[in-house]
Amino acid sequence: MRAKTSYSDLVIIGAGPAGLMAASWASRLQLNARILDDKADRIQNGRADGLHVRTMEILDSFGMATPIEKASQQIREICSWNPHPEDENRIQRTQRFLPKEEDFGRYCQVAIHQGFIEQNFLDFLEKDGPLSVERNIKTESLEFDKADMSADNDYPITLRISHKRSGRSEEAQGADLELPETEFIKTKYLLGTDGGHSWTRQQLGLEMGDGKTRRHFGVIDIIPITDFPDVRTSCAIHSTNTGSLMTIPREGRLVRFYVQLGETGSSGDELDTEKITPRTIADKASEILSPYKLDYDFCDWWSVYTIGQRFASQFDLNERIFLAGDAVHTHSPTMGAGMNVSVQDTYNLVWKIGQVVKGIAQPRVLSTYNAEREAVAEKLMDMDHKMSEFYAAGPGKDARNYNKFRGQFQRFLSGVSVEYGPNILVPDTHERNPSTPESQNGSDKAARAQLFSKQSVSRKIIVGQRLPSHLVINQAEASIVHVHSILRSDGRWRLLVLAGDISKPAQMSRLESLCEYLANPSSFVYAYTPNNAKNDAVIEILMIHAAPREKVELLDLPEILHPFDPKLGYDYWKCFSNNDQGVEGEFSDAYEEWGVNKDKGCIAVLRPDQHVSYLGDLEDIKDMEHYFSQVLQPQKKRN
Amino acid sequence: MRAKTSYSDLVIIGAGPAGLMAASWASRLQLNARILDDKADRIQNGRADGLHVRTMEILDSFGMATPIEKASQQIREICSWNPHPEDENRIQRTQRFLPKEEDFGRYCQVAIHQGFIEQNFLDFLEKDGPLSVERNIKTESLEFDKADMSADNDYPITLRISHKRSGRSEEAQGADLELPETEFIKTKYLLGTDGGHSWTRQQLGLEMGDGKTRRHFGVIDIIPITDFPDVRTSCAIHSTNTGSLMTIPREGRLVRFYVQLGETGSSGDELDTEKITPRTIADKASEILSPYKLDYDFCDWWSVYTIGQRFASQFDLNERIFLAGDAVHTHSPTMGAGMNVSVQDTYNLVWKIGQVVKGIAQPRVLSTYNAEREAVAEKLMDMDHKMSEFYAAGPGKDARNYNKFRGQFQRFLSGVSVEYGPNILVPDTHERNPSTPESQNGSDKAARAQLFSKQSVSRKIIVGQRLPSHLVINQAEASIVHVHSILRSDGRWRLLVLAGDISKPAQMSRLESLCEYLANPSSFVYAYTPNNAKNDAVIEILMIHAAPREKVELLDLPEILHPFDPKLGYDYWKCFSNNDQGVEGEFSDAYEEWGVNKDKGCIAVLRPDQHVSYLGDLEDIKDMEHYFSQVLQPQKKRN
Repeated sequence: MRAKTSYSDLVIIGAGPAGLMAASWASRLQLNARILDDKADRIQNGRADGLHVRTMEILDSFGMATPIEKASQQIREICSWNPHPEDENRIQRTQRFLPKEEDFGRYCQVAIHQGFIEQNFLDFLEKDGPLSVERNIKTESLEFDKADMSADNDYPITLRISHKRSGRSEEAQGADLELPETEFIKTKYLLGTDGGHSWTRQQLGLEMGDGKTRRHFGVIDIIPITDFPDVRTSCAIHSTNTGSLMTIPREGRLVRFYVQLGETGSSGDELDTEKITPRTIADKASEILSPYKLDYDFCDWWSVYTIGQRFASQFDLNERIFLAGDAVHTHSPTMGAGMNVSVQDTYNLVWKIGQVVKGIAQPRVLSTYNAEREAVAEKLMDMDHKMSEFYAAGPGKDARNYNKFRGQFQRFLSGVSVEYGPNILVPDTHERNPSTPESQNGSDKAARAQLFSKQSVSRKIIVGQRLPSHLVINQAEASIVHVHSILRSDGRWRLLVLAGDISKPAQMSRLESLCEYLANPSSFVYAYTPNNAKNDAVIEILMIHAAPREKVELLDLPEILHPFDPKLGYDYWKCFSNNDQGVEGEFSDAYEEWGVNKDKGCIAVLRPDQHVSYLGDLEDIKDMEHYFSQVLQPQKKRN
Repeated sequence: MRAKTSYSDLVIIGAGPAGLMAASWASRLQLNARILDDKADRIQNGRADGLHVRTMEILDSFGMATPIEKASQQIREICSWNPHPEDENRIQRTQRFLPKEEDFGRYCQVAIHQGFIEQNFLDFLEKDGPLSVERNIKTESLEFDKADMSADNDYPITLRISHKRSGRSEEAQGADLELPETEFIKTKYLLGTDGGHSWTRQQLGLEMGDGKTRRHFGVIDIIPITDFPDVRTSCAIHSTNTGSLMTIPREGRLVRFYVQLGETGSSGDELDTEKITPRTIADKASEILSPYKLDYDFCDWWSVYTIGQRFASQFDLNERIFLAGDAVHTHSPTMGAGMNVSVQDTYNLVWKIGQVVKGIAQPRVLSTYNAEREAVAEKLMDMDHKMSEFYAAGPGKDARNYNKFRGQFQRFLSGVSVEYGPNILVPDTHERNPSTPESQNGSDKAARAQLFSKQSVSRKIIVGQRLPSHLVINQAEASIVHVHSILRSDGRWRLLVLAGDISKPAQMSRLESLCEYLANPSSFVYAYTPNNAKNDAVIEILMIHAAPREKVELLDLPEILHPFDPKLGYDYWKCFSNNDQGVEGEFSDAYEEWGVNKDKGCIAVLRPDQHVSYLGDLEDIKDMEHYFSQVLQPQKKRN
């Protein structure tokens, strides 16, 4: 037995969507990281298949959304079916509605098998850098030792793993080939994204409550042969006596059916899940669909699951070992929410780990992960519980107005309503604490002691939520781009200066004052930027004005808005105009959509995950200074 | 010397964009085809860089547009600069306008280097099938023998080539490795897309007129370091004494400059093009840009070219050997038109060759290539000539209103105005021949003798032009798709039934009558479909109605609109609704955009290249029958 020891900043255990999202951040931030998985390959088909708006936005921030958008199925319509009032053996369509999830963001809800999504992540990792999934890895032990946390030797976590050699022919050395090889990995941080039966969670001794019910559902991904008219829309179907089912149209010709199996609602019921086959699931579905018939020739994937919500009480240990995704929250799959929340868990976490490892952010920001994501998981559990009851209850009031019932979850499902804070990363707002006096210029002593955002400067940019994206026009190019496309997930903070109508001299003068401060070598922009990095490497300044574009000359603006590089010339990709000129009718005015005053504008500090951490006026420099002083790490400067 | 003989349906000589488009069709149509190139690799950078709307639509019909759209530079604004009236040594911006090419189709004009576009084609070919570019091929002789045109042995063309072995190690056989290998390829059809110095054209003895002038331009692709404010828009610039230049912003930070070199307009001028370097081109540009300065650190590509238009008198020999792209039309590159017209040449041609080879279409359709594309090339020459004069003329009336001057070419440049016919593939319209009596039901004897389209049924679907694409809603799924996305380049003809408001019984009855005829085994749909093929393999029926979508049940419509397959169930992807319901405000109503009556509808026959070949009413079955009888080949049927 040979054992070697290696060192990492971050080890990710489990290469499902949550782990792969974590790895994508680690790759983008160029961390010394590893991602391990116990299986030989990715998921091939089936499993999680729903992607909601916010997840698509996040994938797009890494350049990963387009292939999914092209290959997946749009979910634009939902139909509800219930027993016919005059014949309980027949179902009839009782409602048909457009959930319009696309109104919450740039994407429509879509469905595609999990393997496609995982492959997309794997393609990204391969293109982006050296990080790739290590497969066939067995995790053997995990130790955490606080004594190993010092400035010199900050590797408190020791993970023992074993793995077979890769078997590539140039490495084959006789009998060694099949010997398991033990390795000790000493790491600063560890993330368990290893699913509902998480080995990592078990090592931490964390319990998931036993929320399992006795209700079993069958799932089949088939090409349906049917006369049921709504098979290509998403349906919620209740029959009188034969149970409930739900459908999701999928990529290609596939449709997913979630089918309630047997009379599982009553206590004492024992369903032998061993005897279930895809054929029995389809036959059950065909019964529920009566008078319509369902058959299939091709089944792509199938499974049986038990309804229940389980939820870990804690998402981290000492802000060093973290858990995410199914490892801390499992539930039923019918709303297509699970993969989304899981991916969003690690999207929330790993930029923080990365910035702490690189000495950009203060370690205290890591405390926000548990707070921010546990609240989301709780809402998820609540929604899933209500949804399970809805299917178990059979036809009734909620089933008759499914649009209304489902409506209560719509915004949460879309992912765009997730609101973080108040916490160290998201200061409270005056509006939430109206008793606190608002200070116009941030110099008031009481306000300094506790920092407040001014939610009043915008109606639709909500402190703690992700910035909604709208189309804007590049000042130099007239190219039309989504705001999110200039907020790529590259680890940078952004000062988004909504400069207002700078064709008016007074407003231009406000912008110039702001830029004068920001351009000063003593400003916070430079204070947190390492010596060897570009000035916009940690905090990037972006500007969107509301003046007629042709009245603004980019090169007449303060240079910090179009920095000069001796080899590359000016940067033409930081200044934009809202759209109320020139390209009339093509799309809406971003300022109006955001509910921001076009004369005055405002300023938003955006976290690297596009969430709004601070909102204020163009003069609120001291507040921003205060904000960053609590979050980022001052960098040593050359004299 | 070893010589082998092989057989092909089509040989393409030259793997630039025109040749690669030809190969894409050949691959999609599964032709026994080859594509040969004399160079070792694709273009790496520079060269053609402009892509207009129609080219993007065509690329998208093969699934190739998205990567280009993502990576390329949008060209949305054009600026015109002219001498300052009070100081002839300074230029000033005199005009700024949005050409709005995107209003003509789904895409904005974009710019990216030719290598990226070629790679996109190569990726498509690799994914699509076995056809790949054979490189390092020397073409040695070409013979055409009419005697070899018989039903049994239809290989009138003999091409002799030599090539080195590929050098892959498993094929290496000692000294053989480097020996040139001669091969005789006997082929039914041959296409020369081998550029301005076309070897193929020379073999045919075809002349290109000598249209060269003495005017020379330099081209550089650089990352500009400049204080010129409009460097990220496309500019037309005239100085008083130092010449003209034009710019195109490009992908990444690149900008292309076309720079008039020296006083080349006067006769007797001799510019030594050997002495030109990228630095001299940039310096010249800097002079023209005065008072602004231009410098660069990085130059990606550069070249020198001579203004002139050259044009072959004939694009084919015996409808067996064809020429396309630069092989038959060369001109100056300033409008970014050349690659577009070249790609459109072979997009026009190769589906015709494919259908003739496969016995689907009658050989006579091949006569339309020369007619359809020569007319386009003539317009291209005319535009280029005017544009060259514009730059040569210096500041003047046209330069002062560049928007107006350029406007005359805008629609042609976009590619969407290209109108084919009247010819065998595009019958004349009553409107063009008002003296001919219009027959309501197509049974009138005079009308039968010569077939006419009814242009009157639509204002914006123009006979001979490509069908404009608008968003529609899938009847079964409520998914929102562009009409072009259901008109993929797969070689199929389409009957696009714009069925009107079928919630009204009288209109539904018209649709039912049409479908009853079409579904009859004696209908033309089946007459031209081979025995072993699916019913929609040659002519696909697509339907877009204008009724409220919720008033239509797909499965209640005639089955030919949602054909049943015993293994795959119904086809849910042939029926759509226009959008004036449900998704209000998101996009416009396709019927209104097309100028089609929503009550009555109409029917359009679309060629495999999305061009409209026939327009009529839902009753004009005999006309369509007549149309196809002149174009397609009846298939032998089993009894």
